[in-house]
Amino acid sequence: MIRVGVIGYGYWGPNLVRNFFETPGAQVVCVADKRADRLKGVQARFPTVKVVEGARELIDDTSIDAVVIATPVSTHFELAMAALRAGKHVLVEKPMASSADQAQQLIAAAEAAGRTLMVDHTFVYTGAVRKIRQYVDDGSLGDIYYYDSARVNLGLFQHDVNVIWDLAVHDLSIMDHVLPFRPVAVSATGLGHVSGGKENIAFLTLFFDSPLIAHLHVNWLAPVKLRRTLIGASRKMIVYDDMEQSEKIKVYDKGITVNQQLNSEKLHDILVGYRMGDVLAPHLDISEALRVEAAHFVECIEKRQRPITDAESGLRVVRVLEAATQSMRMRGQPVELPAAR
Amino acid sequence: MIRVGVIGYGYWGPNLVRNFFETPGAQVVCVADKRADRLKGVQARFPTVKVVEGARELIDDTSIDAVVIATPVSTHFELAMAALRAGKHVLVEKPMASSADQAQQLIAAAEAAGRTLMVDHTFVYTGAVRKIRQYVDDGSLGDIYYYDSARVNLGLFQHDVNVIWDLAVHDLSIMDHVLPFRPVAVSATGLGHVSGGKENIAFLTLFFDSPLIAHLHVNWLAPVKLRRTLIGASRKMIVYDDMEQSEKIKVYDKGITVNQQLNSEKLHDILVGYRMGDVLAPHLDISEALRVEAAHFVECIEKRQRPITDAESGLRVVRVLEAATQSMRMRGQPVELPAAR
Amino acid sequence: MIRVGVIGYGYWGPNLVRNFFETPGAQVVCVADKRADRLKGVQARFPTVKVVEGARELIDDTSIDAVVIATPVSTHFELAMAALRAGKHVLVEKPMASSADQAQQLIAAAEAAGRTLMVDHTFVYTGAVRKIRQYVDDGSLGDIYYYDSARVNLGLFQHDVNVIWDLAVHDLSIMDHVLPFRPVAVSATGLGHVSGGKENIAFLTLFFDSPLIAHLHVNWLAPVKLRRTLIGASRKMIVYDDMEQSEKIKVYDKGITVNQQLNSEKLHDILVGYRMGDVLAPHLDISEALRVEAAHFVECIEKRQRPITDAESGLRVVRVLEAATQSMRMRGQPVELPAAR
Amino acid sequence: MIRVGVIGYGYWGPNLVRNFFETPGAQVVCVADKRADRLKGVQARFPTVKVVEGARELIDDTSIDAVVIATPVSTHFELAMAALRAGKHVLVEKPMASSADQAQQLIAAAEAAGRTLMVDHTFVYTGAVRKIRQYVDDGSLGDIYYYDSARVNLGLFQHDVNVIWDLAVHDLSIMDHVLPFRPVAVSATGLGHVSGGKENIAFLTLFFDSPLIAHLHVNWLAPVKLRRTLIGASRKMIVYDDMEQSEKIKVYDKGITVNQQLNSEKLHDILVGYRMGDVLAPHLDISEALRVEAAHFVECIEKRQRPITDAESGLRVVRVLEAATQSMRMRGQPVELPAAR
Repeated sequence: MIRVGVIGYGYWGPNLVRNFFETPGAQVVCVADKRADRLKGVQARFPTVKVVEGARELIDDTSIDAVVIATPVSTHFELAMAALRAGKHVLVEKPMASSADQAQQLIAAAEAAGRTLMVDHTFVYTGAVRKIRQYVDDGSLGDIYYYDSARVNLGLFQHDVNVIWDLAVHDLSIMDHVLPFRPVAVSATGLGHVSGGKENIAFLTLFFDSPLIAHLHVNWLAPVKLRRTLIGASRKMIVYDDMEQSEKIKVYDKGITVNQQLNSEKLHDILVGYRMGDVLAPHLDISEALRVEAAHFVECIEKRQRPITDAESGLRVVRVLEAATQSMRMRGQPVELPAAR
Repeated sequence: MIRVGVIGYGYWGPNLVRNFFETPGAQVVCVADKRADRLKGVQARFPTVKVVEGARELIDDTSIDAVVIATPVSTHFELAMAALRAGKHVLVEKPMASSADQAQQLIAAAEAAGRTLMVDHTFVYTGAVRKIRQYVDDGSLGDIYYYDSARVNLGLFQHDVNVIWDLAVHDLSIMDHVLPFRPVAVSATGLGHVSGGKENIAFLTLFFDSPLIAHLHVNWLAPVKLRRTLIGASRKMIVYDDMEQSEKIKVYDKGITVNQQLNSEKLHDILVGYRMGDVLAPHLDISEALRVEAAHFVECIEKRQRPITDAESGLRVVRVLEAATQSMRMRGQPVELPAAR
Repeated sequence: MIRVGVIGYGYWGPNLVRNFFETPGAQVVCVADKRADRLKGVQARFPTVKVVEGARELIDDTSIDAVVIATPVSTHFELAMAALRAGKHVLVEKPMASSADQAQQLIAAAEAAGRTLMVDHTFVYTGAVRKIRQYVDDGSLGDIYYYDSARVNLGLFQHDVNVIWDLAVHDLSIMDHVLPFRPVAVSATGLGHVSGGKENIAFLTLFFDSPLIAHLHVNWLAPVKLRRTLIGASRKMIVYDDMEQSEKIKVYDKGITVNQQLNSEKLHDILVGYRMGDVLAPHLDISEALRVEAAHFVECIEKRQRPITDAESGLRVVRVLEAATQSMRMRGQPVELPAAR
Repeated sequence: MIRVGVIGYGYWGPNLVRNFFETPGAQVVCVADKRADRLKGVQARFPTVKVVEGARELIDDTSIDAVVIATPVSTHFELAMAALRAGKHVLVEKPMASSADQAQQLIAAAEAAGRTLMVDHTFVYTGAVRKIRQYVDDGSLGDIYYYDSARVNLGLFQHDVNVIWDLAVHDLSIMDHVLPFRPVAVSATGLGHVSGGKENIAFLTLFFDSPLIAHLHVNWLAPVKLRRTLIGASRKMIVYDDMEQSEKIKVYDKGITVNQQLNSEKLHDILVGYRMGDVLAPHLDISEALRVEAAHFVECIEKRQRPITDAESGLRVVRVLEAATQSMRMRGQPVELPAAR
């Protein structure tokens, strides 16, 4: 039985507590939050769980095996580091830390302590993303041409991070999981419309060492909610629309065929033809992603396995976030990404 | 009565001929196309219209007052210049020319000849775009924050231009008409997937000397057809979805409110609130845009008026296309735009 | 403080318990259910609530003021009658009872006991239905021509009632609330596809003593989920689509105009013209309907008010359900409805 | 070469002329219409086609082999009868005639004359309906449970027929083609909202000698356009949405499974389970239906074949229209249909 403590009971914390509560092999024993009203909410809902105001108290509790961190990004590093040093396994919200440097320090600390460090890239555990990964792995798509995502809505303006760190992080974690290549450079543009606030609209292009391009489109100030990804490829193409209630993934058996031949003026001419076939919306596993993820965290601890969304994936995502923010401040000038470790 | 000759009877030419045929004050007298089969189509459909193979013959026909050019982009400059020099009024397909330099030469030639030079920015004449312009003009939207458009489908791969020159030109001409500011720089990224072919997917960000940002998203290789523009603004926001059959424009009375105040720790805190109101889909004029445009061309010639989509607007659009292509070849490095004349 | 007991903790019971739990002026003190596993669920979630297996025990508990009944339809009458006789106020799930006769007996019992008897016609308390009622009341729609609803999905096949009693009851309760007239006859058709089972697809037409017609379309065996109502009227028309996440109600300023005039052959000719105007999606109150309803129940008890969805509305709905089932067994032969009391 | 004359150049006639014009083996030689302005339209568009005001003149033209009738329903019988008696092959608009009696007389006349008599049930020739027929024929669907169609919009109020004869005729012709059984009775309800006008909203239920039910829903006075058919069946289910631009047919691999077993109280209990699988949108032939149909008409004449939409199908459809109108005037009282010849 893994005894779990959760730090942070704001927006996402209640989902974490509820899911770990219902995960076999896990037991939520303590929740920490600075706000007394939230702790009352925990007690009303989960009377068996101990509540504390200070994260330190939770981390110092030697009866706790694993710490789940669901606090603002700026606090991730300090809390995760303290938990690892106290010998805890750690599941930390995305983005993993405020900088790649911090993320690397956490990786080193986890290795030194021999503890599991996992990042809560929730979407990776959805039926939809697992299905896309399957299509990539089994070759159904052929060569992937582009990954193109829009994630916009009238969203909560964050105080400590810009819209890239809040929304693009989802798409970057999905891409990190499903794409066969790692980005080598990023160009980003964006703007803030609230005086003194962070950028609330941004566009990212990721470049690869292959004929693949990725584009992310994030916006906190949109009149409608869009959650749509197009994946272009040589054999089949995917539309992943997370706003659809039942057909989130559609696989299009359509595309182009290319022939090069001599034209009438004896020049090489490119003839592009078009293939039009069926569209398939595969049945998806509708298990709650966080439930799947909680069970995976427990299993990784017990079997000393490397998590699917391990700290390395967290680091890769943070590196892109850092580079994108840097490029955005230079009106799209591309920023190189370091080769993955 | 304006006597009209049309050069080019491929994809768009038949629409031009049909609409000028039915425009009071205009008479289509001649159509030129290199392909005999197309000319046969003209004769079957419009037996009263003269057909010729050579554009030169049409331009030299002194009975013709106005020439409409619907040929590949690379031929626009030469044909329009010849027609202007022959004293014709000219309506030229978008983009107006292959370079800003060519466009400027055409403007000079039209001024020298005292003839009307208009660019076929068709969307500007739709009921939807005219309604958006009205909302901008009457202040309904407040300050415009962003213009964000996606125009993707499994489209015809052009041989002589990349996807920016083929698709983004539509959005640029709409923006040129509805936005109160001119872009000052552009960052673009994109990729070609057909060996030896032009870029078939591209993303453009336009910067302005105001807190406005524009983003265009064009793609010839998408499994679905999207034609959607979001216009974010301080008072109301617009979704313009050209794939909708009846409610192409929706006006959202929603957005954010910003208050700055001292927080509990005596620091200035930004409080963002949310407004949620009604959504209105205004009734739109459903006249065919090209009909409205043909009548406007005739009226501009007769009354010596400056067209709504005059040659200057054609030049401004071409300047962005040039700069965007240049930026795209540098992975998004921003390219400055010259100040408008 | 109204002390509430809830009988039945299956599909709907948990929603009732949760909402009464959070309603000021109410306190959930006891839940009864025959199944021990469900009672365990109550205890885990609401440790302060007493659980009992027998409904009788709950009804006999003199500390309880009001009983909420969320059990199968066939048990409503007996439980509600017992609760009323024990001096409780009662909120009973829809349909109120298995027959009009039972419903009338309950009305009499409530009157005799001087207790509030309310029926859980939940949809009446949604922002969408309240908005429709407002449009009917303020004359925005003009004369109502038809009410036409489709409520289909792959739904739970009920054992004790047919699809009319399970799904059409929603539409009938909405119509009872928003329409200015009462139906005078019903014609229904339907079929069961499971051997020995109840009808799983049905179509109802309701007739009125005015140029109004209503049609309900219910189906447990549909591949997609539809929840759409069209309301035709002389001035404006409404589409109410409950599957829409944000624009559930759309008001269309369109319709016909009728002129009768002499035609060229000196005969009276009916000229029908068409009006096309804007479409408005009004902002709706998104409070949870059951929360609004729970508060209303408490208020009705405290202030001795007649509930919006009183027992008379429950009776009227049951009368149509009875008549429709009768007509359905006669292949659509119309069945008269008794005039409302 | 079949020489074709077309009577009626109103709403549908131009489509017929255009399609026969482009059908190999057919030649449109004459068009008749009472209105001179329409005949001018023919001449402008098809200068080689002769135009006449009187249908009689066209029918008497001995150079004509086949007559296509696209006039109001009330004139179909007289014109078709005259054409058959003049030895012409006939393609007549749907509905074939104003009564089953007339339809039978036309069948007899065609047989006596040895001429092809075909009804323009256009939808039968669409890629979508042909695909549905294929799924029915190859057993993909299993047992068909229901056919449920909605065909509503703000439509042209017809003067000589009610909405059933105008809109339901489409669905009845599709059903006649795709369903394996013939209806045995019909119950219909409906109402007219224009004083002195025909019914503009109607609902039809069709009964069969098998566990199959069909329901049609037609409306000239709806704020939105719906063209949707659900086909429920034991193995797979279909949604056919003709308003979809590219995925008109979706095949759902979902449904119920039924087990009957002894329950805990030793009674037979029906256990209904649910299957959820993939959704497939098959690629459809997008040829214009009327082109396919025109070619089929020519082929049937040349090869003396029975048309897919032969006069018998026309008669069956008219029988249902007659019975439905009769039932509608009796508030849904069912009307038996004669057994098919």
